[in-house]
Amino acid sequence: MIDNEKLALTLRSFARARDWDQFHTPKNLATSISVEAGELLELFQWSRGQKGWDDVIDSSIRSRIEEELADILLYLIRFADKAGIDLQAIAERKIALNAEKYPAERFRGSDRKYDE
Amino acid sequence: MIDNEKLALTLRSFARARDWDQFHTPKNLATSISVEAGELLELFQWSRGQKGWDDVIDSSIRSRIEEELADILLYLIRFADKAGIDLQAIAERKIALNAEKYPAERFRGSDRKYDE
Amino acid sequence: MIDNEKLALTLRSFARARDWDQFHTPKNLATSISVEAGELLELFQWSRGQKGWDDVIDSSIRSRIEEELADILLYLIRFADKAGIDLQAIAERKIALNAEKYPAERFRGSDRKYDE
Amino acid sequence: MIDNEKLALTLRSFARARDWDQFHTPKNLATSISVEAGELLELFQWSRGQKGWDDVIDSSIRSRIEEELADILLYLIRFADKAGIDLQAIAERKIALNAEKYPAERFRGSDRKYDE
Repeated sequence: MIDNEKLALTLRSFARARDWDQFHTPKNLATSISVEAGELLELFQWSRGQKGWDDVIDSSIRSRIEEELADILLYLIRFADKAGIDLQAIAERKIALNAEKYPAERFRGSDRKYDE
Repeated sequence: MIDNEKLALTLRSFARARDWDQFHTPKNLATSISVEAGELLELFQWSRGQKGWDDVIDSSIRSRIEEELADILLYLIRFADKAGIDLQAIAERKIALNAEKYPAERFRGSDRKYDE
Repeated sequence: MIDNEKLALTLRSFARARDWDQFHTPKNLATSISVEAGELLELFQWSRGQKGWDDVIDSSIRSRIEEELADILLYLIRFADKAGIDLQAIAERKIALNAEKYPAERFRGSDRKYDE
Repeated sequence: MIDNEKLALTLRSFARARDWDQFHTPKNLATSISVEAGELLELFQWSRGQKGWDDVIDSSIRSRIEEELADILLYLIRFADKAGIDLQAIAERKIALNAEKYPAERFRGSDRKYDE
């Protein structure tokens, strides 16, 4: 379980204590998610992580991955909190949409979903 | 609450049914998070969302925001599931790190945290 | 003038001398462009650069902007060189396409081009 | 050769005719570069372009790659024009920096440059 309500409250008081709420516009938080996603991606810029999951066991890489994933998740929770969006509900809805869009029998073994 | 364990199981069987597990390398999932973050950011490419949260009330924009947030969250959950990473734990750890890194009294009202 | 042919040749021998050609796949170079674009964006994550161009005169920021712009340009030139794409030709073609897509009289003063 | 001065002039009058200059802040142009880089990356989200350059010969993909590369280049030229940055000069300076940072004998055949 991710206790996003509690994390959101912590982030709220974190921002309040620093008077950072003024900077948390939709545009700035979307920017932050993108910046952090770029930092995660940088860890896999060349060969790493191309074949499988063994590459991420190494502890120095692992802790950097964890930090970037956490950053993305926290900005996501902050965005949803400010916008009044229920993350669990939209995740379920998106899975239902994907099930319709990519019927198993038609997309089996193909990664061309984004190109058609 | 986000039931990430249950969502992760659904994503697992979703991938299994389409034989997509082969494509879910660390590099490809990090790429996917970045691509979806870019699609969220595109909604705020120009003036929108610069001032405050009123811009995201409009229903057509709102549903696109929800879809992009959901995509990012689902790829995040999928990545963590494949890597054996506990999202709640890393989020709590990151908040603790941030509290140390940005003492309230020193960073009050300043958005220069990333630049110094 | 940007002497992209000469820069491309320099990048070729740079890669050859380090045996890096093997890493310069389309996917890895597209990843690199995205990672560097994220680093540029990070400089504008919060308030900076929101109002106008005065923010980028400050010399420490300016030299970081220049490094990120250069990185993006060099990966762009490298990608085009590997793919046999003429950057000047595609830039001209894209401007012609944009002129058709956004007739001046219809889009004057509106930044909603991406949303319709 | 890329005639960036001439392209910059065309982009200036393009923006003027649409009264878009107001939207071309450093932050918005950095955002645009990142958004377009994400669209390029999306073409390589899964298997495509992982092995080599044969994947980009296919004409439908090729024309999409060309459009995304052109978008990135045009926003780069627009940013540099607004900021008064000489793209050729910064590209040369960056190559010199990279030559120092990655001595050929030490980095031969290794793609770990970003990770150590």
